[in-house]
This record gives sequence, structure tokens and C-alpha cells, in this order.
Amino acid sequence: MLLCAHETSQVCRAWAHSGFPDASFTIEENGYEPNWKSLDSRPLPQWYTDAKVGIFVHWGVFSVPSFKGAWFWEWWKGENPRQDVVDFMKKNYKPDFTYADFAKQFTATFYNPDHWAEIFKASGAKYVVLTTKHHEGFCNWPSKYSWNWNSWDVGPHRDLVGDLAIALRKQDLRFGAYHSLFEFFNPLFLEDQKNKFKTQDFVQAKTMPELYELVNQYKPDIVWSDGVTIAEDIYWNSTNFLAWLYNDSPVKDFVVTNDRWGSNTKCKHGGYFTCGDHYNPKTLQSHYFEDSTTMARHGWSYRRDMKLSDVRTMEEVTTLIAQVVSCGGNLLINVGPTKDGVIVPILEERLRQMGQWLAVNGEGIYGTKPWTFQNETLNGDIWYTSKPAASVKEEEQATASLKDVYAILLKWPDDLTQPLVLGDPVPTDTTEVSLLGYDGPVFPWIHHVGSGLEISLPSIPAFAMPCQWAWTLKLTNIYN
Amino acid sequence: MLLCAHETSQVCRAWAHSGFPDASFTIEENGYEPNWKSLDSRPLPQWYTDAKVGIFVHWGVFSVPSFKGAWFWEWWKGENPRQDVVDFMKKNYKPDFTYADFAKQFTATFYNPDHWAEIFKASGAKYVVLTTKHHEGFCNWPSKYSWNWNSWDVGPHRDLVGDLAIALRKQDLRFGAYHSLFEFFNPLFLEDQKNKFKTQDFVQAKTMPELYELVNQYKPDIVWSDGVTIAEDIYWNSTNFLAWLYNDSPVKDFVVTNDRWGSNTKCKHGGYFTCGDHYNPKTLQSHYFEDSTTMARHGWSYRRDMKLSDVRTMEEVTTLIAQVVSCGGNLLINVGPTKDGVIVPILEERLRQMGQWLAVNGEGIYGTKPWTFQNETLNGDIWYTSKPAASVKEEEQATASLKDVYAILLKWPDDLTQPLVLGDPVPTDTTEVSLLGYDGPVFPWIHHVGSGLEISLPSIPAFAMPCQWAWTLKLTNIYN
Amino acid sequence: MLLCAHETSQVCRAWAHSGFPDASFTIEENGYEPNWKSLDSRPLPQWYTDAKVGIFVHWGVFSVPSFKGAWFWEWWKGENPRQDVVDFMKKNYKPDFTYADFAKQFTATFYNPDHWAEIFKASGAKYVVLTTKHHEGFCNWPSKYSWNWNSWDVGPHRDLVGDLAIALRKQDLRFGAYHSLFEFFNPLFLEDQKNKFKTQDFVQAKTMPELYELVNQYKPDIVWSDGVTIAEDIYWNSTNFLAWLYNDSPVKDFVVTNDRWGSNTKCKHGGYFTCGDHYNPKTLQSHYFEDSTTMARHGWSYRRDMKLSDVRTMEEVTTLIAQVVSCGGNLLINVGPTKDGVIVPILEERLRQMGQWLAVNGEGIYGTKPWTFQNETLNGDIWYTSKPAASVKEEEQATASLKDVYAILLKWPDDLTQPLVLGDPVPTDTTEVSLLGYDGPVFPWIHHVGSGLEISLPSIPAFAMPCQWAWTLKLTNIYN
Amino acid sequence: MLLCAHETSQVCRAWAHSGFPDASFTIEENGYEPNWKSLDSRPLPQWYTDAKVGIFVHWGVFSVPSFKGAWFWEWWKGENPRQDVVDFMKKNYKPDFTYADFAKQFTATFYNPDHWAEIFKASGAKYVVLTTKHHEGFCNWPSKYSWNWNSWDVGPHRDLVGDLAIALRKQDLRFGAYHSLFEFFNPLFLEDQKNKFKTQDFVQAKTMPELYELVNQYKPDIVWSDGVTIAEDIYWNSTNFLAWLYNDSPVKDFVVTNDRWGSNTKCKHGGYFTCGDHYNPKTLQSHYFEDSTTMARHGWSYRRDMKLSDVRTMEEVTTLIAQVVSCGGNLLINVGPTKDGVIVPILEERLRQMGQWLAVNGEGIYGTKPWTFQNETLNGDIWYTSKPAASVKEEEQATASLKDVYAILLKWPDDLTQPLVLGDPVPTDTTEVSLLGYDGPVFPWIHHVGSGLEISLPSIPAFAMPCQWAWTLKLTNIYN
Repeated sequence: MLLCAHETSQVCRAWAHSGFPDASFTIEENGYEPNWKSLDSRPLPQWYTDAKVGIFVHWGVFSVPSFKGAWFWEWWKGENPRQDVVDFMKKNYKPDFTYADFAKQFTATFYNPDHWAEIFKASGAKYVVLTTKHHEGFCNWPSKYSWNWNSWDVGPHRDLVGDLAIALRKQDLRFGAYHSLFEFFNPLFLEDQKNKFKTQDFVQAKTMPELYELVNQYKPDIVWSDGVTIAEDIYWNSTNFLAWLYNDSPVKDFVVTNDRWGSNTKCKHGGYFTCGDHYNPKTLQSHYFEDSTTMARHGWSYRRDMKLSDVRTMEEVTTLIAQVVSCGGNLLINVGPTKDGVIVPILEERLRQMGQWLAVNGEGIYGTKPWTFQNETLNGDIWYTSKPAASVKEEEQATASLKDVYAILLKWPDDLTQPLVLGDPVPTDTTEVSLLGYDGPVFPWIHHVGSGLEISLPSIPAFAMPCQWAWTLKLTNIYN
Repeated sequence: MLLCAHETSQVCRAWAHSGFPDASFTIEENGYEPNWKSLDSRPLPQWYTDAKVGIFVHWGVFSVPSFKGAWFWEWWKGENPRQDVVDFMKKNYKPDFTYADFAKQFTATFYNPDHWAEIFKASGAKYVVLTTKHHEGFCNWPSKYSWNWNSWDVGPHRDLVGDLAIALRKQDLRFGAYHSLFEFFNPLFLEDQKNKFKTQDFVQAKTMPELYELVNQYKPDIVWSDGVTIAEDIYWNSTNFLAWLYNDSPVKDFVVTNDRWGSNTKCKHGGYFTCGDHYNPKTLQSHYFEDSTTMARHGWSYRRDMKLSDVRTMEEVTTLIAQVVSCGGNLLINVGPTKDGVIVPILEERLRQMGQWLAVNGEGIYGTKPWTFQNETLNGDIWYTSKPAASVKEEEQATASLKDVYAILLKWPDDLTQPLVLGDPVPTDTTEVSLLGYDGPVFPWIHHVGSGLEISLPSIPAFAMPCQWAWTLKLTNIYN
Repeated sequence: MLLCAHETSQVCRAWAHSGFPDASFTIEENGYEPNWKSLDSRPLPQWYTDAKVGIFVHWGVFSVPSFKGAWFWEWWKGENPRQDVVDFMKKNYKPDFTYADFAKQFTATFYNPDHWAEIFKASGAKYVVLTTKHHEGFCNWPSKYSWNWNSWDVGPHRDLVGDLAIALRKQDLRFGAYHSLFEFFNPLFLEDQKNKFKTQDFVQAKTMPELYELVNQYKPDIVWSDGVTIAEDIYWNSTNFLAWLYNDSPVKDFVVTNDRWGSNTKCKHGGYFTCGDHYNPKTLQSHYFEDSTTMARHGWSYRRDMKLSDVRTMEEVTTLIAQVVSCGGNLLINVGPTKDGVIVPILEERLRQMGQWLAVNGEGIYGTKPWTFQNETLNGDIWYTSKPAASVKEEEQATASLKDVYAILLKWPDDLTQPLVLGDPVPTDTTEVSLLGYDGPVFPWIHHVGSGLEISLPSIPAFAMPCQWAWTLKLTNIYN
Repeated sequence: MLLCAHETSQVCRAWAHSGFPDASFTIEENGYEPNWKSLDSRPLPQWYTDAKVGIFVHWGVFSVPSFKGAWFWEWWKGENPRQDVVDFMKKNYKPDFTYADFAKQFTATFYNPDHWAEIFKASGAKYVVLTTKHHEGFCNWPSKYSWNWNSWDVGPHRDLVGDLAIALRKQDLRFGAYHSLFEFFNPLFLEDQKNKFKTQDFVQAKTMPELYELVNQYKPDIVWSDGVTIAEDIYWNSTNFLAWLYNDSPVKDFVVTNDRWGSNTKCKHGGYFTCGDHYNPKTLQSHYFEDSTTMARHGWSYRRDMKLSDVRTMEEVTTLIAQVVSCGGNLLINVGPTKDGVIVPILEERLRQMGQWLAVNGEGIYGTKPWTFQNETLNGDIWYTSKPAASVKEEEQATASLKDVYAILLKWPDDLTQPLVLGDPVPTDTTEVSLLGYDGPVFPWIHHVGSGLEISLPSIPAFAMPCQWAWTLKLTNIYN
């Protein structure tokens, strides 16, 4: 085949696995095959299912207008423009101002990836996913395939992706690369679209080369694919790419991916499932999932006119963690830095508060598994996670009928004269009830009529409470 | 006199009171005379001494570089430049970029004075002081005396001062106008300075006309003068201006001023005393004072690279209020909006938290007077304020020997098995001790050996505490 | 008087001559008095009436939009805006762009005053008049009275006036300072105007101080006043200023002024008369005048969209010189440099061509006086100038009845078989006719029937012609 | 082959002719083959060899800095930067300003292609070649293969190429598309270069697709290739492209190309030869050539600091035409418009002057062929062109021994008392000598001793001369 006459070409390598009859490379023995049946058989690496909490970072040229959100361009110039965005541009910019003109002001003046990493570490999250390229097509690294439309040539004049990856790893945080396959206004994409995706010029000239470049260069722990609502996996060349990723890439042993590889794959194929944005199902999921949502309402990217009421309270954040982890997922919570590269103090505050909470309650979050019940039957403000019972020998845990169960209370009872009733856990004689982070004695309990147990919570003075929002009761040796 | 040939001229009116032998206007009968003895005799309007808490707002062209602080220009181009500021400009701007060039980017895009006023109201503050003109000389209103260097001609293209004054008054907040007499680089000022202040071209052409314009146009409740370290009151024409302000101006009946009217007047003459910035003496003051300080450390103006650790905690804020009010002063706490006109969420959060605290503890703050003691002798974490005892008839309060005393506890005792000992208050038989905002019964107390009283604090469960930081005990009928 | 308590103040000095009863300085003995009768009695310095040709230079912030002309601001924002200018701004700039914003782009990047001076010298002009401040109020020098609205604080960051004055003098060219009293949008002016010019705040704060500064600092040979259509001399303080200029200023012995000192003085009082722009009366004037006009049609300032057809041809330029000088005036011809400080090549070409023409024909221009006749009665394409007959002794020239007369032919006759007939000159026996710049023998002539003379022009081959446009015949010893 | 699975892809079509063993399309019967032997056999279309004079237009992002020339980027950021360019950027732009940032200011505000076309028509040129893309890689048309780096997405927001092509054709002018294969800093090119041109990613992703797009969309009469000093034709895929251009393209019947298709093809292969820039060999060439040179010295693009002395005089321009046409070439003379889209008046003047000259002398230029002699042996200021003798019947002209010869005199003799001697032409009895554009009688001549003829030039009065620079004598019926 023509392209593969030159083995040094990444483009060539990409297409080698294309599955077209004349592809000249063959799949390695025993490797994953470029079809979903084979690819879906790969187990999710454990580091990911143990991690539970990640930080999502939306940063790009959209951080310059910093208005409404990361879809700014589409809302301004797309087929169904939003009046508020159109008016904003009319009022504040000269008539022939273009989206590309914003890039110059994407300065990243105060971008300090070590400071970011310190905050992320303090938040208790275990991994961080950065938008290496969003739907605008602007690469946050010096891609050869996006000349003059990347963070090296214009704007920051820095390798934003590379610099963050290094800083994260210094803090033992995993690095995830968000990458949008689709681009709002790339003319090659629009041409392919006009051709009803019978042509793949865009995929060949941009998406594939840059994905290979990204993986080879930055060795991400996660490839967080996005932007697939319009075309199917066959157009995007997804299975071929994933086969390479799982078989031959430098990250094949630990990389995690999601399910956004084609309009036909969401919630169906790939690594973990994301289904929609803000996916918080509140019931146990059969496939591991991730709820990607935002710390600040109304947008993934930084909005200059953000108000305090736009920021989630810690009550909301801890509720999210409890619900998502209970149901078998990770929470990927988003912050949008400014165009200057600053994570503004209110977001820094929430992240550090989340870290304070996880420092106390992490035992019931990290490395846990969903339990038999997720949401307490008698009390909707309680969510469960579980671990093998510590009292059971490690080699017998898998089959043991006992678990240590964590009951996360979203509200602390107002009236302590009444016991706290849990209907779902079936206690054993050796069951003890304690509060994570609390120094006092274990809490007395009795059997509840029917099933479950009744716990007597003491009146803990204000400053002896281990945390301000959501408290975790640990119940040992509970029947499965 | 020449200028006063035309009575319509404000310049003329200003100079009418100049005290020079040929000044053609005479002082009104019984008015204040343009000398400190007379001016200092004017009592401070009560609205101000009752208010206790105000918000300071630093906003100007310096909000555009938004780096280091409001003295940016001086630090960049002054006689002793700061290396970090010089480097910042070198790195980020073209060689011949000037400070004036920043003004264009002072857009105030999202400036919503009603939203500001709502936040300020919620903060519990009673007045707001805006930098109408800082040392940079840029007027935040369309001054006739600062053409092309004001917020109407360049940048926001709005009357920032006027718009805020209206919004504040809709919320029943008082409006203060900060005004710097001195300007870093005004060539007329520099010329006067070269002439050892024997000439007054600058004062005549700029300072006086714009002060008259400001007062006549916006009728401020406070004229917060600043920028007087270099020259004395005689150069600034201060006493003449104040005589007009107190005798003839439209605000003569309620206006409050400070003490920055010449390098020789600070802490000596004028209205209330500010002495230095961040003036928190922690001992009773003989003259009413104001502690102007910042909510965010390291600068009066918004800094784009602000970190969470740069923002005062609520423990610090409540401590400041307690100390300042105890010693006979107001706290003027500063927030710096962005160049877009946004009070960023972390500052909004602190202001609203301050408001929550004042909603509970305001009884011990607003309208109080310093008590005999300020800082509890036996416990440095307690500060006192006082009001006439409510049990005494109003007409007898002035001479009564009883007071209701408020003891503000900066820390809640860890060990409630021991009583809280107050050494300074001398209780009467009718003395009751209660916690502001707490619904429970009054607290039992006994006499302390020697003097004072011992209070038994109950173990209040976390969620029954009336606030999170600093708690106010009210002690009724205490001997003066 | 107040201001003059400080003698170092220029403002003070300006007002010293104000004529108000309390002005403390007295007019020097024998000096000019501040009234037109006295001021008009001053003779025009001879250097000026000998010079005949000057260059006008319009340069300012209006050179940035470089569209339509120097009145751009008025046409955009004035009471009767021009649709084309309004549309231009709408199309090319953001909605809140202001005129002041243009100043930043007034870079003068390539401004080389020595190169300008070399071109001006080569043009044959004897003086150059620069717009030190046009109606926009922007000072092209670092004026103390126009802070942040001058070429030192914003834009070029250079003293454009001072640098040019120096360069001109190195080339023995005289330097003229154009200065507009009026400013379109200065708020102090607008206020005075609203007060029907009963107040003079603007004149006192800006016009007078800056005029004194200008004269003292740059010692201009010409003060070319402008901008007086709206208010009378009494408002502008003109006679007082001129009395100082003529009596006490450093340029009193050689300075020349024009007649634009009040709406009531044009074509009536002052130095030479300018009357209107492009004033080319084509008849003998009783008072010395100056025709100020442009090399490029449609505007005094550089227009980026200038076409070749907008530029005057050399036929037009030489015609102007001939007509204006014949009628007793100087030609002040204008070029507008770019915002970069470049005199574009087409204008450089015309200036050098004018210099080539003056190098040949200057004898009939410089130092000449109008003759008895201006425009030849029998041939409208011929204009006359004169000098005392060289054959007469110098001490008798003033009263002699003989002149050397220069007949400037705007067209060279097509048909040389017919003699050139001049009806106005009365020849003597010693009259000789020659062509300036032509080496050949004098031309034969005979008396014309009635009066005048008939001249036989030879057929001069193309390359022996002394110039390409307008040829000067010299006729010696002609009766007055 | 993979790419060609989709016939709608232009990329595919380009590679179809790639000559690689698996190329799936076959060359049409009897078409040109993709090798130089075959391609070089194509005759040059006659419209081109008749045209003689074309206009070159260099316009692009380099027109924004408008300093030094079109290589600005290379001189600034290349391996051997020029100090003056580096200093210029340091002095006038912020430190991290990039070349891409210039694009925003490429406004083309006054671009009026019809006005350009009118000027070009008036210049007497027959074709116009525009830089559709120079070495900077910026496409002056909305190319799908140069997203966000073309005149539609940034800067002018117009199709500069298309608009000009239309305007030219309205004036019956031919449209040529200059296109640089090489791009200074395209990362794909740099990668290929690093791979020693063993990879062709750049050619495949950018050069070929955009060349096909350009030809299909605008149907240029000339494809003026450039930028080939570094790599050979095999890398550039040149012969394949040319085979398509000559065989299948919509312009196959009339398109002309040059010789810049690889570092190994200059002056050797392709259409006409350009050899180096400013190629004026002054001796007869065996292959038709084009001298591309500039009207303004020191750069192909507009320079804001251009001086009059930088612009060629009409003596130089007419000399160039005479020399180039005499030796068998066309003159392609360049003008650089401003970033605003204006051809400045001095260049407009030269173009119109050239048109005036060609209007008189065109008979000796257009449609001529080199003669036996080029430069008169006895007089270096005379150059010859020729046409078939008009006295010979058309069908015999090809073999006739007679020619009408045009002798272009660069200087008009000073001394007309001596005859003008031409040594090279061998006159016949019917030879007549006349001056193009002159109405008078033919000029007498006699045989010169040895060979040639002696012509008596009359003394033509200045205004009867047909032109100002370079005069053409027509000599009929001269022996070949």
C-alpha cells in the first residue's frame, strides 16, 4: 500500500491496522482483534477501579471568551446559534473577529503545572484527565498535524499536555488524555460529512495521526475519547486504533479507555462506560462506569461571570461521591482553569475540602466495591460501599459470606434521642459500628425488628466531629 | 481675582476658599473655618460610628495587569522599580507598551452594580467605599478634568462611580468615594514637586476641580482621601476644601471624612483616623478610627494569580471585626473586582459568610460602643463590646452604671468540663448569660474568686451551634 | 493675583498679560499692546515673504484610521456624522472602540526626521509647518497639559515636534508650529461652549499653557493658529498671547503668525492672512497671504486608500506656485505621513519634482514681489512676478520705474511658427528675453501693436528643455 | 489502493498518478507521461509567448510586518536569522508574538480587485500572477487543507484568489497562480526533511491536495511553482501532478507552467524557464524564459518604509522590457500590495507609465520574436526585436529572408548633427525607418560603410516626442 511504503510514517502505521484488504501488517498472535467482541474482552485495569475519584480539566481556546462554555464556537457559528452568544460577540468584538483570533489571547501566563498537581493531589483524586484537544480542534500540545492551531504555535507557546503529565507523575497521579474525534468546523471533517462519511480524509489526515502522536509521546493512562455523536466507529477507524492501543502501544499494559468511539458504541463498547455527561444512575450498573460532571454548574470551561451559587456545595460533592461509588463507578469532577492557567480559589477550595473529606472517609471509598445494597431501603440519605471483611483471611475473602460495609450518611440525624435504623445490613455477633475519623468508643447497636440494626449515635460536640459533610459509619462482619 | 470673574466655574469656586489674601468669597457666618482647630470640632455623624463594617473596593486600570497590586505603575516605572513587575512587563508585553495602554482592556464586561450591591448587602456591611480615582489618576467617572483618562472615554465607557452609587442606595447602603490627591506620574504634579510644592498647578487644574465635581455629582456619604505622604495640607488646599464640604456642599449634613489630607494630618486631623493601612491597634483609641484592610492578602486590587491561601479565613475576619470594634473603630474590608467587573466567587463566599456571622452576632457589633475593657484579662481570645443596659430606661442610660456587655469568643473551649472564666465583667444579681443565636436556656454562672464570673457552657451538638466562627456571649446588667 | 504668586508657573506668565485689572505684570515700554491696532502694526518678517513655498505636514492620531481625513473624529462622533465614516467604524472595529484607542497604534515606527528634512530641503521649500496639535487635542510633544493624550505617553513615545524641529534646522529650514485652539471633544471646551464662552476654563487649563510651553520649548518661526470658527478672540485670550509673543517671547524677533485667532479675525487681523483653506484668490491681495492646500486631494492627512488620481500632477503644482506668488502670497503645500512616519514615495516624488522645478525657476519665485499685472491680459496661461531691475543701482531700486519681470508660462506653445504675444509688459530698449535654465541665446522680440511685445520662441529639442512643466521667461528692464 | 477506494477524494486522485506499483489508475492513451522527456515535449501555449509582459503580485501575511520582504518569517525564526529582522521584532512586538499572530492584522480592508484589474489592464500587461500561497504556507483562498491558516478563516475573511481571478478575466487578463511547494516551518515538511525526504507526509497532506483544489477551483492560466531548492521532483510528486495538469485538468489546453518543480529541474525541465529570480541574461536563450523581478527594489512584498529611490525609474523598466523581450523572454514585474489591499500610488504610477509606453511601443513588443541580433553591436543602448516582414505574404513568412525589425533606443541621441549608426541590420531597398508613435515623415537613411545603416533623426520638439523613455525605430524589410 502506498502510504506504508515508508515505515517511519505514523500515518502509515495507523492505517496498517485499517483492516482494508491490502493492509500490509498482520495482527500479532494472541493479540486483541479490531472488533468489539475481542476488544470488549479486555479487563479494566485495577488501578482505575480502585481510584474512584478523578479530576477533569477543560482548558482550551474556549477559555478565552470564557463565556457560556466549551461549545462557544458552535453556539456562535453553528447551525443553531444561541442568541446570548451571538449578542456577546456583537457587543464585545469587531465584526470580523473570528474564533481563531481568540487563540492569541490564550496566554497561560500563570500556568504552573506543579501547583495544579499539588492541588489535585490534595483533593484526594487519583487521576486527572485533561482536554488535549476539544471539539474546536486546537491541540494543547505541539502536534505536527495541527499546524498553527495548537498551543505551541499560537497562544501559550507551551506544551500544555506534556508539562502537566510530568507534574502529575511527580505527585503519583495518573494522567488521562481527553481527545475529541469530532471537530466542529474542520473543513476536512465537514467534507467527509457531506460525503456521508464515505470518505475518511479527516480521519486519515488529522484524527488518527494525532492520536498516535499523543499516545506515543505522552503515554497517557487513560485515552478519554469524545465527539462521536455524528459518525459511527467504522468512520473513525476506532477498532483498529484500539487494537493497536491494547496490543502494541507503549501503554498497552495499563491504559484505560472509555466508550465514546462511535455514535453506535456509547454505553455499549470500549473500556468503562460514560453513557451521557453527568451520568449518575443511582442504581447498580452491570458495567463499570464513570460519572463525569462539573464542580461549577453551567459549563465545563471557566466562565468569567461565575457566581458563588454556580459552584457546587460540599454537600453536593460528597453526595455525588457516595452515590457514584455505591453504584459501581468513578466520579470525574471537572474544573476549568482560566486562560491565564489559574484554578481559581473557589475551585481550589472545593478541591481541598474534598481532599479533607476523603482523608477522613477514604477508607470507605478507595478500593471499595459496590455492596449488595446501594441505597438504604429505610433511609434515602444513606449509601453503601463494601470491602472484604478484614476479619477473614485474605485467601478466603473472595468466597466469604462476610463483608465490612460502609454506610455513608449524607445527613447527620437531628434528633439523637432516636436510634439510627439501617434496614439492609444483616449484622453478625462480631459486628462493630464505628464512625470513620472519630476517636470515641464504638457505637452500641441492637437488632432491628425484621432485619437490620438500630444504632445509638452519641451527641458529639461540634469540634469533635470528624468532618463537616457526610459521615461514614463502618459496620464490620456484615452478611453479604 | 481672575478665576472668580466667572462664577459658573467650579475651579473658581474651589479657589474662592483658598485663604489667599485676594480670595473674594467670605466664609459664611457660623460655619467651619478653614483651619484644623475649627474643622476638627465637627462631630462624626452617628450613622458612621454605628455602621462598624464597610466594604472597600479597589478597581481601576491596575485591575487589568491584575498583578501584584494597585501600585503596579509605580513599581514598574517609579524610582525604585520592583524586579518582579519589571520582568512581568518585559515577558508579557511589547517593549513600548505603556500603562495607558492597559486602559483599553479595562472592559467591565460583566459589571452589574446591582449584583455587587446585593452581595454587599448580604455581607452585613453598612457602607461601601469605591476608588473613584487611585494614584494612577484614572477617574472612574466621566470627569471633565481628566479627559481621555477616565472610564467614560476609554475602557469601560461607563460611569462606574455613578452606577454603583445608585445601586448601593437602592440597597440602603451608604456610598463612600475614595479619592487620591496624589498621582504617581501626573506631569503637573511632578512639576509642582520639582518646585518643592511652591506651585499648585496640579491642585488647581486637577485635584480640586475633580473633588468638587465628584461631591456635587455623586453626593458621597464618605470622602475617603488618600495619597498625601509627600506634601502637606497647605499644598493640597485641604482645609479650604473641607470648609466647603462641611459648610456648603450638598452632603454637609452627613458626610464623613478621614484624616489623609496632608503628610502632616494623618492620625491628627480630619474626620475619623486611618493612620496607616491595616491599622488594628488592639487597644482602645481616643479618636474614632477605621481599620482598612483586605480580604485577600498581598494586594488591594484583584490579582489573577491569587491562591486560596491568599484569602483570609473566616476565623481571621471575625477576629478582625471583634478586635476593631472593641477598640473603637470600623472595619473597612477590601475586595478587588476583576477588570471584567466580577467579584470572584471566593470573595463573594467570604462576604456572604461574614453576613451570616453578622446576622447572628450583629447585636454585639452594630451600634455598640467600646467597653471599659477591650481584651479579656484572663483570656486573650475574648473581646468586649457594650451597649447601654436594656433594663435601664433610655433617658437614664447615659449616666447609668450598668451595661449589657458582649464577649466575643474567638475560640470555643475544647474542654467543656471546665467553666469559662471571665475576669473583667463585674456581674450584678440580674446578670444573665446567653449565646447570640442559640435557642437553648441561659447559661448558669457563678462569681469568680476575686472578680468576674465563671460560666458553664453546655455541650451543644454540632448542628445546634449558631455559627461556625466566633461566638458572642451576651452578659446583661454588668457594672460599667 | 493668585496664580502669579508663583512666578515659575507658565500658566501664571500666560495670564500675566491677560489685561484683567489685577494682572500684576505691566506691558514693557514701547512694546505691542494686546489689541489689534497695535498688533497689526508689526511688519511681517522678510524671511517669510521671501520664502514663497512651505510644506504643511498633517500628522496625528487621525493618521491611524487614515481614512477620509483629519476630521475623522468629528465625522464619526460629531453632531452631523458622515455615513461613510460611521460605516467604516462599524465594519472594522469593535462596538465600543473609541477614538482614544487609535492612539496606541500611532507607532511612528519608521519616523526619521532627518530623512523628512532631506526631502523637504530637496523640494525647494523654505519652511515646514507641522500639526503640533490638531482639533483632536493630541499633542505631538510631551506636554504637561495634555497628560496621557500626547505622543510621549501613548503611541510613538517620542517628541515628534522636537525631533522634527532639530532636523529641519540642520537643513536650514524654518520650523512652523500649527496649533489648534479649538478641540472637538475636550470636555472643558464643551463646558465653556455651553456657558456661551463666558467661562474660560479650557483656555486657561489647556490652550494657553500649552502654547506658552510650545513657544518656549521649540522656538517656532511660525505660530500657525487654527480652530477658531466657533469663538471670538476675547475667549481665546489671543491678543494677550500675541503681545507676549511679539514683546517677550524667545522668538519675538523673527516669529510669523497668521490670522486665525478668533472667529472675528480671519482675513482681518494678525500676521499674514489665510482666510479659508485652499485660498488661491488669483487677484492681487492687499495683505500678504498664504494658500494652504494639499498635494493629495480629499484630505489633509494620509489616506490608506489614496489613488494616483488623488495626487496633484506637477502641472497643477507649478500652476499653484505661479498663481499664488504672482498675487502676493506663499504656497503652503501639504503632505500627510503614515502612522508609521513615512512620507510615501508618490509624495516624495512630487516634492522632489517640485524641487527640480524650483532649482530651475526659483529666480522668478523666491524673493520676488507681485508685479503691476498678475495674469497676462492676452493669455491666461501666463503669470507674472517681479524683482527690482538688476540694471538699477541697489539704492535707487525702490523708486526706479524699471523692473525685471518673470513671465511663467503654464503651457508651452504648440505652434512655434507664431510668436508668443505678451500684452502687459512695456519693454525698453534694453529689454532682453531669456528662458530660465536654458543655455541658448536670448530670444528675439518685437513690439506688439498697441502695447507689449512679441517673442519668437525657438524649437528646443526635447532634452534641451530646462524642465517638464511651466517655463519662466525673464524680461529685463520692463517699465513698472 | 486504500486512498483510492473513495473516488470523491481529491487526495486520492492526486496519488492515483503516483507511479508507485500499486497505483490503480492508468495513464490515458496518448497523454503525457509522468516523466520529463514526455512532459518537456509539450509546446508552450502561444498566448504566453505573445504576452511579453505580466504582473507579479506578492501578497500574504508577510504584508503585515511589511518589513524587509516575503521571507520575513525565515529571517526572523530560521536557522540563519537576520539581525535587522530580529531587532525589529524585539523592538516592536511583545516577546511571545508569533508569525501566526500577524495574520489577524492582514485585513485587506480596501481590497478592490476590480480596481487592481483596471490598473493592471492599463499597464499593458497581459497576465497577472498572484501568490496564492507563499513559503509561509498561508493560503489566500479557503483551502480545506490549510485550516485556520488561510485568508478565509483568519485575516481578510475573503477568497483573495477567487475574487482576483474573476476581476482579471473581466478585463481579459490571464490569471496565474503562484504556489510554493515548500513551506518554511510546516512541521510535516520539517519531519519529511528530517527523514531525508524518504517520507512524503507533507506532500500528501498538504501540497498535492491544495494544488488540485487550486487548479480545479480557479482554473489558472499559469501554475507558477516555487520553493524547490531543498528537495527533488520525486519528493514533490511533480511529474505526476504535471501529467494530470496536461492530460486531465480543466486547464490542460492552455495552462502554462514554469521550471520550479524540484531542486533538479530549474533551468532544465517544465514549461518556460525562470532559472533564478531577476533572471535577465541579456543574450539569446535557447528555451523560452521569464524574468521575474520587482518594480520596487529590496523585496517582493510591500515594505512600509519604501523610499522613492527604491522604486525603479521608467528608464529602468523600459530597459528591462527591451532586453528581456529581445532575448526571448517575458518580463514578470512585481508589485506588492499593502496589507489593506492597496497598490500604492507610486506603483500605480509606474504601471500606468508602463502602459503609456506600451501603448506607443507595443507593436515592437507584443507578439514579436527575438531577431538575429539582440544588442546592437555598435551601440549598447539599442535592443532588437522582430516580426515577419509585413510586405511578405503570410503563408511565406516562415521561410522568408526578410523581417521587420524594431530597434529600441534606450537613449535619445544628444547630438542630432551626427547620424544614428546601426551596424547589425542589413537593409534592403525597400527598407523604411520610422519612429513608433511619431506622426512625422519617415527618417532618411544611408548605407553604413561595411554594413548597417546610418539614420538621420530630426529635431523633434519636446511635445511631439511620442514618449518620454525608450523609443522604438521600426525598420522594415531587413535581411534576416
